[in-house]
Amino acid sequence: MGMTMTQKILAKHAGLEKVEAGQLIQVNLDLVLGNDITSPVAIKEFLKTGVKDVFDRSKIAIVPDHFTPNKDIQSAEQCKYVREFAYKHNIENYFEIGEMGIEHCLLPEKGLVVPGDVVIGADSHTCTYGALGAFSTGIGSTDMAAGMATGKGWFKVPGAIKFVLTGKPAKYVSGKDVILHIIGKIGVDGALYKSMEFAGDGLKHLSMDDRFSMANMAIEAGGKNGIFPVDEKTIEYVNNHSNKPYTVYTADDDAVYDEIYNINLSELRPTVAFPHLPDNTRTIDDVGDVKIDQVVIGSCTNGRLEDLRIAAELLKGKKVTKGVRVIVFPGTQKIYLDAMKEGLLEIFIEAGAIVSTPTCGPCLGGHMGILAKGERAIATTNRNFVGRMGHPESEVYLASPAVAAASAIAGKIKNPEEI
Amino acid sequence: MGMTMTQKILAKHAGLEKVEAGQLIQVNLDLVLGNDITSPVAIKEFLKTGVKDVFDRSKIAIVPDHFTPNKDIQSAEQCKYVREFAYKHNIENYFEIGEMGIEHCLLPEKGLVVPGDVVIGADSHTCTYGALGAFSTGIGSTDMAAGMATGKGWFKVPGAIKFVLTGKPAKYVSGKDVILHIIGKIGVDGALYKSMEFAGDGLKHLSMDDRFSMANMAIEAGGKNGIFPVDEKTIEYVNNHSNKPYTVYTADDDAVYDEIYNINLSELRPTVAFPHLPDNTRTIDDVGDVKIDQVVIGSCTNGRLEDLRIAAELLKGKKVTKGVRVIVFPGTQKIYLDAMKEGLLEIFIEAGAIVSTPTCGPCLGGHMGILAKGERAIATTNRNFVGRMGHPESEVYLASPAVAAASAIAGKIKNPEEI
Repeated sequence: MGMTMTQKILAKHAGLEKVEAGQLIQVNLDLVLGNDITSPVAIKEFLKTGVKDVFDRSKIAIVPDHFTPNKDIQSAEQCKYVREFAYKHNIENYFEIGEMGIEHCLLPEKGLVVPGDVVIGADSHTCTYGALGAFSTGIGSTDMAAGMATGKGWFKVPGAIKFVLTGKPAKYVSGKDVILHIIGKIGVDGALYKSMEFAGDGLKHLSMDDRFSMANMAIEAGGKNGIFPVDEKTIEYVNNHSNKPYTVYTADDDAVYDEIYNINLSELRPTVAFPHLPDNTRTIDDVGDVKIDQVVIGSCTNGRLEDLRIAAELLKGKKVTKGVRVIVFPGTQKIYLDAMKEGLLEIFIEAGAIVSTPTCGPCLGGHMGILAKGERAIATTNRNFVGRMGHPESEVYLASPAVAAASAIAGKIKNPEEI
Repeated sequence: MGMTMTQKILAKHAGLEKVEAGQLIQVNLDLVLGNDITSPVAIKEFLKTGVKDVFDRSKIAIVPDHFTPNKDIQSAEQCKYVREFAYKHNIENYFEIGEMGIEHCLLPEKGLVVPGDVVIGADSHTCTYGALGAFSTGIGSTDMAAGMATGKGWFKVPGAIKFVLTGKPAKYVSGKDVILHIIGKIGVDGALYKSMEFAGDGLKHLSMDDRFSMANMAIEAGGKNGIFPVDEKTIEYVNNHSNKPYTVYTADDDAVYDEIYNINLSELRPTVAFPHLPDNTRTIDDVGDVKIDQVVIGSCTNGRLEDLRIAAELLKGKKVTKGVRVIVFPGTQKIYLDAMKEGLLEIFIEAGAIVSTPTCGPCLGGHMGILAKGERAIATTNRNFVGRMGHPESEVYLASPAVAAASAIAGKIKNPEEI
């Protein structure tokens, strides 16, 4: 029997001809990632190992994006601790505010991940880079420490679920809607410790930004990773962003999949995940009357230029409903600048939204838009767990940038087709 | 003996022909202001009075600017409490994020303060509106409550110090440098409970933004208020921003001043207040070698369009020193939009600074740029007390936007003339 795309990448990085699901392997890492929450823990563990230096100062990325610009003294101290470590070890890819953004938007943009890479990151949404045909997955801070010290990681080879996508999605059906539909279908543990391998000729209708958004949420179905085949769009993206050599892996024809789902993208509708799990989905036609207090457009899921474009297209010349707070978070400084040059930020401000500097912000209940008791947000983020964006009795509804922008105008969850 | 400008405004609002320093009077208020920190306390006190409604819903302004976008659950709850009060009492000038900014930048921009007004605000920098020839001063939350209930305030009529300004300041000597010079001269209690009354033909060289910056810091010399004569620039500003009727008051020729200072603006140099008091000033020629970690450009003192223009002029085509965090806070949504349309925000981003949505941010150690132990910031804000921007062992140096921008490029406190 053959191997999946994920298994082929892992086998190569383990120096093995062949691996199969369930096998324990040790692999060479192309990149080890941490942020301002996880890196301090990892650094403390790293220091305990007695190893004098990191395995490769060009293969570690540290992005203090969660509580920055420093929210409080504690976060300032955390960032200082990370910064001093990064300077001491000459970590090439340590990024300071002003040159950075949200880690999972930033790393691909900086060309630090290319097809065929193996990437671990002490952040659950590290699975984002599967959009580039890389194996990438979230790990704990101690694994980050071991990775920094040795350049190696231990894995149980995952089995896989194949999602065969066909057809062309309608205008307001984005990658976010596709992944919400999938999670709604298979459940938040539907892909537990498995690769979510996307395939099919429907892929050609999904932009790189759609794919980042989808791979980003693989973890919300419990997936070990989400991965896309490398096609012309991937190559074009990589050529525009990176000088790193890359390798294209393709699944064997006789690869083993635990399940195969066929999804006709042309049949999908804009989709919203109701509280308090990402699999609690409804199509926009069934959302009913849900009044909102806050709209969040951005995050590692949907803070990229295409996301901002479609939100701006809907908000142009319109006004945010009085009393609704609308916060736009571009994913990186470059996306912020590009969006400004395209006139998108002007549209947001004129509509009555605010634009934040790139930060993870309220997505994880961090800062810059926390909800009070009883408040309700629609967000383009990736999790709507109890209390995720603030008070335990607040609510988060997950949706695409189009649905979020339409809702900002309507003051309640709204179908963008009706704006 | 005659009255000062401040005394004349107070006399009129007390329905008296004449008042003198030390006299206790009750005055009618034209505006009562609160923010997200002070309003909750004031509202609780207001509710205790048993008064059913506010004295005039058009004469109260509530601006939740300190910990917004909501920093955490506590600030979210505070804002929710304030919002519900504002909606219940139909407070006309309650502002939500997306339509607001830093209170002392916002109120003049919205035309809510005009010459001759008496304004109290539960925020110490309420003295800012003296730039418009109004009497305005900071009060406590219980005075805000009484003001909301009765429309009246009690004052002891202040004595006055007159600052006669002559000459034309050099290019990089702004209102901020003038007020830092004055505070350095008279000390942080040099104007205790007195009016700082500005006069002299040097005023014609000070823009409205210079004057806002100067009046804003009257409290840093202990002043009850700072006030400027109404001239063509004031009238032009008011005509561009407000439809409210206004009254121009002028000091009597025989008004009593406790002291008179003559200041030749052409002799002033860019000035920096060293830690940990605003009166610990040095000219830029005497700052020595002070390395910095963070630069903050913005706040109610220096977050206006001219401030951003001069910072952008210096940063254009330059890069922020590696490792220095530079945070720009436009004062209001309108200033943000205007700065974007002028290309200033693009210059900041390209230089490696970040641009925040309007908020009081790190100025008061709130959020969005808090300092760790041992870190040092140069800031265009108004206070450099111990721990003001974060850790008790951090340091804040106060300066103009020009000095701050030059320092961002140099990585240490720098004379803008040398950039």
